[in-house]
Amino acid sequence: MTNAPADLRRGLAEAHDVHVLILAGGVGSRLWPYSRRAQPKQLLPLAGDHSLLQATLGRLAGVIPPERVWVVTNAEYAAAVREQLPGVPADQVIGEPEPLGTAAAVGLGAALIQARQPDAVMVVLTADHVISPASAFQDALARGVAAARRGHLVTFGIRPAAPETGYGYIELGDPLPDEPPGDPDAVRAVRRFVEKPDRATAERYVAAGNYAWNGGMFVWRVAVIRAALQRFLPGLSARLDEISQVVAGGGDLARELPAIWSRIPDRTTIDYGVMERSDRVACVPATFAWSDVGSWDALADLLPADADGNRVLGRHLGIDSSDCLVFAPSGRLIATIGLAGIAIVDTGDALLVSPRDRVQEVREIVARLRDQGEERLL
Amino acid sequence: MTNAPADLRRGLAEAHDVHVLILAGGVGSRLWPYSRRAQPKQLLPLAGDHSLLQATLGRLAGVIPPERVWVVTNAEYAAAVREQLPGVPADQVIGEPEPLGTAAAVGLGAALIQARQPDAVMVVLTADHVISPASAFQDALARGVAAARRGHLVTFGIRPAAPETGYGYIELGDPLPDEPPGDPDAVRAVRRFVEKPDRATAERYVAAGNYAWNGGMFVWRVAVIRAALQRFLPGLSARLDEISQVVAGGGDLARELPAIWSRIPDRTTIDYGVMERSDRVACVPATFAWSDVGSWDALADLLPADADGNRVLGRHLGIDSSDCLVFAPSGRLIATIGLAGIAIVDTGDALLVSPRDRVQEVREIVARLRDQGEERLL
Repeated sequence: MTNAPADLRRGLAEAHDVHVLILAGGVGSRLWPYSRRAQPKQLLPLAGDHSLLQATLGRLAGVIPPERVWVVTNAEYAAAVREQLPGVPADQVIGEPEPLGTAAAVGLGAALIQARQPDAVMVVLTADHVISPASAFQDALARGVAAARRGHLVTFGIRPAAPETGYGYIELGDPLPDEPPGDPDAVRAVRRFVEKPDRATAERYVAAGNYAWNGGMFVWRVAVIRAALQRFLPGLSARLDEISQVVAGGGDLARELPAIWSRIPDRTTIDYGVMERSDRVACVPATFAWSDVGSWDALADLLPADADGNRVLGRHLGIDSSDCLVFAPSGRLIATIGLAGIAIVDTGDALLVSPRDRVQEVREIVARLRDQGEERLL
Repeated sequence: MTNAPADLRRGLAEAHDVHVLILAGGVGSRLWPYSRRAQPKQLLPLAGDHSLLQATLGRLAGVIPPERVWVVTNAEYAAAVREQLPGVPADQVIGEPEPLGTAAAVGLGAALIQARQPDAVMVVLTADHVISPASAFQDALARGVAAARRGHLVTFGIRPAAPETGYGYIELGDPLPDEPPGDPDAVRAVRRFVEKPDRATAERYVAAGNYAWNGGMFVWRVAVIRAALQRFLPGLSARLDEISQVVAGGGDLARELPAIWSRIPDRTTIDYGVMERSDRVACVPATFAWSDVGSWDALADLLPADADGNRVLGRHLGIDSSDCLVFAPSGRLIATIGLAGIAIVDTGDALLVSPRDRVQEVREIVARLRDQGEERLL
């Protein structure tokens, strides 16, 4: 087998030891009023007919079957997740008693997958990102799995489309010595992880060419990540051992989990808790387009622009309006006159109108509604 | 009896020969998407619990009973008008077979009122204006009726609140010689009617102090207006004679009216057809506040301003938004960020967002919808 994409993908499809953990716990308010606590971003159809969660599963078609997909989510979303992913076995959708950061969620998934298949390779994906095309994603996945088999903690580096200040960056080093020489897409060493930079720094990173966005997706052998957790987050690791024991002993995890979970001492991310500290980290330079749909402005960029630069989901009639986002899934007519760069988000019980470059302040709207006790609108 | 307001109003209340004709035929698109062809402005509650039509009747309380009120409207609105005005006898609500301008509508009303009471005084009011307070309106009405009894064709002059270019103006002359000397509110002669002026001219009019807006309200004896119509619009007058004959002969006017109406040669307004030509015209200088609610911007001025200058009907949560109009009678939450001077009009099946100073372009929206055959949205 070579490192050619087709060979790599065939190798992935033929493997029976690769499992996927989808992290589907977000409760973000940045897409309010469309996303709500009861209907978070990952469960909504934001860029097509399927929800972002369903699209995440869909991108695995042909290489990883739903029987080897696991989902960790908030307890209150577990039922909705099972409904949206009927192919995923119901007992592989786990509701966290309480969100404790991605380190705990990843550890839980690792413990469960390891109990099923001790030598498994484990892919970690996020449920609320938009990625295309699926073929490029699968190529990157196959490369990542191959590197993970060799013991690396693999992350995926997104080629930065702009000097964004809202993402973490990865400084890429040389291609791994065990990659074929001269392969431009070779998996690379990681020099360091960088927290969200300021604008000037981000511009420098983009110009330098060897920085990538940290997309929050990973591949590793379960044994390798368990060992890393034991080393860097021993308190969490001890609780994961308890979980492994419950499962190995045929116990009722749903009943035991809340008590174990409540004794996890670390509330941290897998990036900060493990990836930034380990020397086994490697990065697949991704060639796919990626968006975390982290704001209405980011969502706008996913919609095609009309002749006036307006991005429309729904029905818009504009007189002299340009560069607007009109998001109205109900199909209600949105008529505008003389607007430039305005976002209009129309949902059943609430409407948002804001300049596109200020939509991130929607969090302030949500905070005020919370202060006012407007549970129905959160 | 003196010309003191209380005496004048008592005189009006005690009279039994004063009838009111409400013109309720407008199909304006300037308040789209709230006003629609099937639900025009006058039938909507725009500035309170009652529709503008109901408020028009309400302002007559205590001086003219509904039994002496007549309404001429579009045939398709007649049923809705009867429903909104249960006190007005059903046969005094007349649907025009086709709108032909206010001259024909006024003439039809005059013919019907004259058949009921040949020496009647007839007040003509519009159904879609906002006027307050009712007491000042009734004072002006009483003065107008008194002048009409003396043979004048009386109009009401609104004190201009701003140099509006969208209204006709009336240049006022001296107080009528038959008014009590020294009365500041005396009915005055009319020097001339002026069509909608340009901005500079309007500013001159407002500065001059002796110009008033033409509010489209009138008082006259039915015999006097019939004579004026005979002189200035003889073709229309001949058709009105036919209407009088049908009614006098006990005929079925509803059956006969379409044929008579189709032979009216003049499609004109009572202002242009009669008032601008007659030398019997007089004007009551009105002291009431008046709005024709001719645009969303005009409607905004009728709503109280909050601390940020926003005018809200409904529920608004604004972050750094000012001088906006938020009109959302459904009570849906309208959240805004960083908007200045924007109008947001939220109705069941359509939403309008526009700078307040461009809302008049909504007519272009309506025109495009008509071109697209969007009957449901017109």
